[in-house]
Amino acid sequence: MKKKVILAIADGVGDKPCEILGGLTPLEKAKTPNLDKLATQGITGIVDVVGAGIPVGTDLGHMVLFGYDESDYPGRGPIEASGVGIELVPGDVALRCNFATVDMSLNILDRRAGRIRERTNELAKAISGLEIDGVSFLLKEATEHRALLVMRGEGLSANITDSDPKLIKGKSSFKRVVPKDDSEAAKKTADVLNKFFIESHMILKTHSANASRIRQGLHPANFLLTRGAGLMPNLEKTADKYDIKGAVVAAEGTVLGVAKIAGFEAITHKSLTGNLDTNVDMKAKLALAANKNYDFVAINVKAPDLMGHDNQPLEKVQAIEMFDRMIGKLIEEPLEDTIIAVVADHSTPCERMEHSGDPVPALIYGQGIRRDRNTAYNEIDCAHGGLGRIKGYEFVNTLFDFMEKTVKKGN
Amino acid sequence: MKKKVILAIADGVGDKPCEILGGLTPLEKAKTPNLDKLATQGITGIVDVVGAGIPVGTDLGHMVLFGYDESDYPGRGPIEASGVGIELVPGDVALRCNFATVDMSLNILDRRAGRIRERTNELAKAISGLEIDGVSFLLKEATEHRALLVMRGEGLSANITDSDPKLIKGKSSFKRVVPKDDSEAAKKTADVLNKFFIESHMILKTHSANASRIRQGLHPANFLLTRGAGLMPNLEKTADKYDIKGAVVAAEGTVLGVAKIAGFEAITHKSLTGNLDTNVDMKAKLALAANKNYDFVAINVKAPDLMGHDNQPLEKVQAIEMFDRMIGKLIEEPLEDTIIAVVADHSTPCERMEHSGDPVPALIYGQGIRRDRNTAYNEIDCAHGGLGRIKGYEFVNTLFDFMEKTVKKGN
Repeated sequence: MKKKVILAIADGVGDKPCEILGGLTPLEKAKTPNLDKLATQGITGIVDVVGAGIPVGTDLGHMVLFGYDESDYPGRGPIEASGVGIELVPGDVALRCNFATVDMSLNILDRRAGRIRERTNELAKAISGLEIDGVSFLLKEATEHRALLVMRGEGLSANITDSDPKLIKGKSSFKRVVPKDDSEAAKKTADVLNKFFIESHMILKTHSANASRIRQGLHPANFLLTRGAGLMPNLEKTADKYDIKGAVVAAEGTVLGVAKIAGFEAITHKSLTGNLDTNVDMKAKLALAANKNYDFVAINVKAPDLMGHDNQPLEKVQAIEMFDRMIGKLIEEPLEDTIIAVVADHSTPCERMEHSGDPVPALIYGQGIRRDRNTAYNEIDCAHGGLGRIKGYEFVNTLFDFMEKTVKKGN
Repeated sequence: MKKKVILAIADGVGDKPCEILGGLTPLEKAKTPNLDKLATQGITGIVDVVGAGIPVGTDLGHMVLFGYDESDYPGRGPIEASGVGIELVPGDVALRCNFATVDMSLNILDRRAGRIRERTNELAKAISGLEIDGVSFLLKEATEHRALLVMRGEGLSANITDSDPKLIKGKSSFKRVVPKDDSEAAKKTADVLNKFFIESHMILKTHSANASRIRQGLHPANFLLTRGAGLMPNLEKTADKYDIKGAVVAAEGTVLGVAKIAGFEAITHKSLTGNLDTNVDMKAKLALAANKNYDFVAINVKAPDLMGHDNQPLEKVQAIEMFDRMIGKLIEEPLEDTIIAVVADHSTPCERMEHSGDPVPALIYGQGIRRDRNTAYNEIDCAHGGLGRIKGYEFVNTLFDFMEKTVKKGN
């Protein structure tokens, strides 16, 4: 029977044996009665999200889990822009940027404009809509001094340098953007963007929000520094390609950005923090509500990844037990025709404090699923599971097939 | 923590059940306490070096284990040329050749010039540096009657036939080399090479080393027969691509040749023979010394492969126990921050007396490695191991990831 799917993503959950945990991984150490129940009644395996030994970023990891191929990856800019709510069209160039402070000679005084938090939405609105040489600019504020800039027009390229000098020693101006190749598109994009820096500076420096900051003795946000240009490719939305009604419950902009690119509803709530203090009960509640109206619902829990980055095995155990509690909420009442799958976007071993290329444990649970002999959800037991060791796209295809959304090949 | 790697390669170790061993494989039959210790404390699996069911040569097998792709394979000529110490540049055509004996009408009297062993270095030097139509020739002697010839110049191709007729019935001349395609490059290469055969013959036949052979009633080495032309591609050295300082301890020219192509130090010693009488203690000693200065140290033990080719299961057991002894030497003292991995370049089942497409058993051992439940290193137990069944490049990426040398994809 055609299934719906709830995919719970334990961000960065994969780990290696930790000394402080007596040689166990955080997943082995954690008390996870709900995950183990799913493992016992379901099928398990390990997944190389992109490939064995290849560390994967959260953005690409979620793209794969939402039905994309590695080669579809558009870079950080477009994903972040999508995350803050800009609807990108193919050919857009999206750039991450900072509000910064420059003096009258355009020397950078502060790369982050005093970590400005207030009225950046007004500043962004004052810039957004600017048009230079047929290219229109969209600017949308993000957290603190961060913003996303989108260039929209014919014949643009993302193959350009950053204007943000990052490290500043002594007096330093912004770096004029230059093309990284000989194409007309890269040349044009760099030219227009360099004009934009001056034009936007003229607008920002006279903005009332900045006048008010100067009166308060704060650095005005009178300049934009850009980095990480990415071209939005002509990506078919996963929602359209597979005819899937999808939703993603998450706190983090990156994950929500990938969700929107895939054509999935991005669901969040002020009590979802992306950290140990997140409200997993709310996550489960939102996911179960979405399950009624959507074929595919993904839930991201970010905390295990953060604890890995901070090398805090004990707190990672805690994050995993929190994740397990959420799984418990999901199965409190029997779900009709819904499969629950659990996976991670990558491993973040505490010892490494970064993503690694270790495979992640995975499970699939629900009525009518082939069951294997494994009874625990962790890196070691799942390696002996009935799904074997598969690639990220194979795991996703498996779920989409349970949804009867993959296309038969041959006849 | 960033690891170093010692990769022990049991050449051709993979096998099938042998009747004489009571239905066990040589690996199952052999007493291998050290390998089993590593298996018990580490993670195991099986590896398809190129692909399931695809037999792999020693040269390509080692290329894969040293970080290359199947499509990078340049043919035997360039690898052997590299093995004898010729530094190839992209565009070089390398050919394996024999010193041979011809009569005055250029009929071949002996394809191996009486298996000449003496003064071939002088003969090679007399030829090396010859230049014909802008193509320069390098000749370097190898074992016995063998030598390596390199053509260096613009617009050469390896798509040419062999001049070595191999089987000779009655009077037979060398085969004039002809292009295998319509390209100018293949035509030019064949033309120049055919001229070279005559010019080099003129030099060789009057060389004092040959005059002396004739006086002794031996066949003079007065001609060069070529085969197996290969074009050196523009291969990035693994050492550069992954920023790895590597070294390879081996007896065999092929393995050392691949090492040099990869940009790794080629380490050998007169007591390393590539056979059952090799000095595995010396191998371990050289590897441990190299471990101090290199990120990646590979050790090849050739004997298991030879015993497979000779269909000698009992001697293969002996070769494996010798390999195990070497592993024991490697772990005599605890290695800090070093992972030990064990794999083979291919299977050489005794029964087949040739390489087969059977996967090879693999293990990875060291601090912080996920441990599986397997306790023995052999074809059968490793098939149930926690690494699962992976491809050669995936195994290598896994090692490179432990070294933190793979590049994160996405952000």
